[in-house]
Amino acid sequence: MNQRCADIFALIREKKPLVHHITNIVVANDNANAMLAIGALPVMASSQMEVEEMTGQSDALVLNLGTPTPEIVESCFLAGKKANQRGIPVVLDPVGAGATHFRTQTVKNLLSEIKISILRGNPGEIAALFNEPGTMRGVDTKRTLQTPMILAQKASLYYRTVVAVTGKIDYISDGQRIFSVHNGHHWLTVVTGTGCMASSLCGAFAAVEKDHGLSSAAALGFLGVSAEIARKNATGPGSFHYALFDAMYNMDIETFASSLHIEVEA
Amino acid sequence: MNQRCADIFALIREKKPLVHHITNIVVANDNANAMLAIGALPVMASSQMEVEEMTGQSDALVLNLGTPTPEIVESCFLAGKKANQRGIPVVLDPVGAGATHFRTQTVKNLLSEIKISILRGNPGEIAALFNEPGTMRGVDTKRTLQTPMILAQKASLYYRTVVAVTGKIDYISDGQRIFSVHNGHHWLTVVTGTGCMASSLCGAFAAVEKDHGLSSAAALGFLGVSAEIARKNATGPGSFHYALFDAMYNMDIETFASSLHIEVEA
Amino acid sequence: MNQRCADIFALIREKKPLVHHITNIVVANDNANAMLAIGALPVMASSQMEVEEMTGQSDALVLNLGTPTPEIVESCFLAGKKANQRGIPVVLDPVGAGATHFRTQTVKNLLSEIKISILRGNPGEIAALFNEPGTMRGVDTKRTLQTPMILAQKASLYYRTVVAVTGKIDYISDGQRIFSVHNGHHWLTVVTGTGCMASSLCGAFAAVEKDHGLSSAAALGFLGVSAEIARKNATGPGSFHYALFDAMYNMDIETFASSLHIEVEA
Repeated sequence: MNQRCADIFALIREKKPLVHHITNIVVANDNANAMLAIGALPVMASSQMEVEEMTGQSDALVLNLGTPTPEIVESCFLAGKKANQRGIPVVLDPVGAGATHFRTQTVKNLLSEIKISILRGNPGEIAALFNEPGTMRGVDTKRTLQTPMILAQKASLYYRTVVAVTGKIDYISDGQRIFSVHNGHHWLTVVTGTGCMASSLCGAFAAVEKDHGLSSAAALGFLGVSAEIARKNATGPGSFHYALFDAMYNMDIETFASSLHIEVEA
Repeated sequence: MNQRCADIFALIREKKPLVHHITNIVVANDNANAMLAIGALPVMASSQMEVEEMTGQSDALVLNLGTPTPEIVESCFLAGKKANQRGIPVVLDPVGAGATHFRTQTVKNLLSEIKISILRGNPGEIAALFNEPGTMRGVDTKRTLQTPMILAQKASLYYRTVVAVTGKIDYISDGQRIFSVHNGHHWLTVVTGTGCMASSLCGAFAAVEKDHGLSSAAALGFLGVSAEIARKNATGPGSFHYALFDAMYNMDIETFASSLHIEVEA
Repeated sequence: MNQRCADIFALIREKKPLVHHITNIVVANDNANAMLAIGALPVMASSQMEVEEMTGQSDALVLNLGTPTPEIVESCFLAGKKANQRGIPVVLDPVGAGATHFRTQTVKNLLSEIKISILRGNPGEIAALFNEPGTMRGVDTKRTLQTPMILAQKASLYYRTVVAVTGKIDYISDGQRIFSVHNGHHWLTVVTGTGCMASSLCGAFAAVEKDHGLSSAAALGFLGVSAEIARKNATGPGSFHYALFDAMYNMDIETFASSLHIEVEA
């Protein structure tokens, strides 16, 4: 298991997948730097004038709804359809679903019209997709009736996609298996956009591995192990933020494999 | 005084106010990270499709005109009106007022149609609101006829709001008292968006304390003390930028109280 | 040569040129911080409501097509024409030209309607302007038929402007001379937006020196020397990213002059 995850990471460094992002003004820089740090290539393009053509040459598509506008949403549909035609993986990050009707409805529409490969969100965002009210406070989880593990499983079955619900422990369900990722550090919650970064990593890992349950567990484990290393070189969330990119870039395949703490249930 | 400021900061950590930002592409990431570092929750949303709903669940609203478009301006009006209805504080950062007619007029319109709780700008921006020509060079103050203290006082009386004019010494007027904040470090002027960060902090501090003259003095004192600490851990504006988030996050209530240098005149 | 480059840098610190950017959501923060670190003043404004007025008070204009939309493109034309009227330098960064028709055509249109002073891109972007297919992978060079030096020369003659083709060695042609800049570090390729930063620096250097071949060589040499210094203080691309701003800010004129490695051929 750990070795297979490490192999996926090694493949990213070898193949340098191009990951097209339609993302937001808060985290665009971090998204791109995370891709470069692991050896992937980021490209950010969100105008309807060009998203299909950009997706047409990419190895994965990441749709991130952090600061959505009607134009950006329309671009997500166009790029998503193109990705589906080409058979490349599509990651959807439903930032703030549940906080406003616009976000919730946009995510539901995308899930219904586009074949999403991986849906990555926090518990409140995933619960909101089942019309559970009051799950969010802005873009953070407030409360949910069900556990993150149950939410991952339920959403995976309902939306027929891999679902990653991230938090202290990350749960990934592909409808059959449940992966739980125990790596990480709580400073990931004191830096904005680390969830978005997780989604970007899911995109890069999915670009080189067709088992998207496994690739997502590897991606989230990678972020978790990087965070654990970064924590040792940081004195607060500011220095941690940048130590994170150093850790990703300097990650040794063996260290990664031996530090991963992932469990699987079938 | 210092203890009351420290109490407001302690209250942020306890209540974790949600601060809705309509902000710009230059500083959105920093704005969000400053909020997380002090224990508040940021949310960035600027589409007319959702700003009212997002403000409807927030504890403060920060309107930042750093890279304005007609769409963003319209969102500022919608969110501002919603905030007024709900009685939550609204901070207005008139970035670049005086540099272009679009910015100056937008700020004046917002001040006339929305009840702004705190107006936070540099001397040139505030002077421009009194039609003084030539006060700005881009988004930086060029020259003003009056001192920052007089500008704060005058704007506060004219616009009937708390006005914070920031610089080497920050002056805050609520129409009656004048607070002068002597904390800070000149490297704050070598990192973009620290003024915007000051406005975000004013929003979070106002969310938990109704005396907005005092809460703004506390917010600006907090940034100043954080800068003084960050300076000790930095070798230039790049490392200072990130040491600033570490300093905010690690701020000890007692250190904060004992480091503040604020004077008040009634 | 080296002394002349150092003199240009010294002039920036003295004159503090205002550099108007129409730029993208990925690098806006870095662009601004690079300007502040060298002593220039950045201003970011991209709405058609104000770009002409902002350019009207600036000392240089930088057009960066990193995340273009039709609105931003229209603003580039308006600001470019204003800059031409006023005779201030215009730098064009054709991010991703060759990756999509929208980008390629936009760059060609700008080059035909606006007098561009400096065109700064990677080899694939410049080759794409001669209709060479398959030069790009997202915003990175894939392959080109001609060497970067030949591309710089050819584009300079064809488009009658200074052309800087950046890479391991940077080549700048003004149609007569070819400057080659040998400073730099490969971590510049692991941080997003360092090309954009190079374009911003070209803008600031051009604002104070009319020989734009020389000023561009100085600007790229400045980034290269800063990168060499930053590398010594960094443990990966995250810490390098911020050490870069420290290095720019702390740059000693003599160190800069003695570290430059630039060759010229007439």
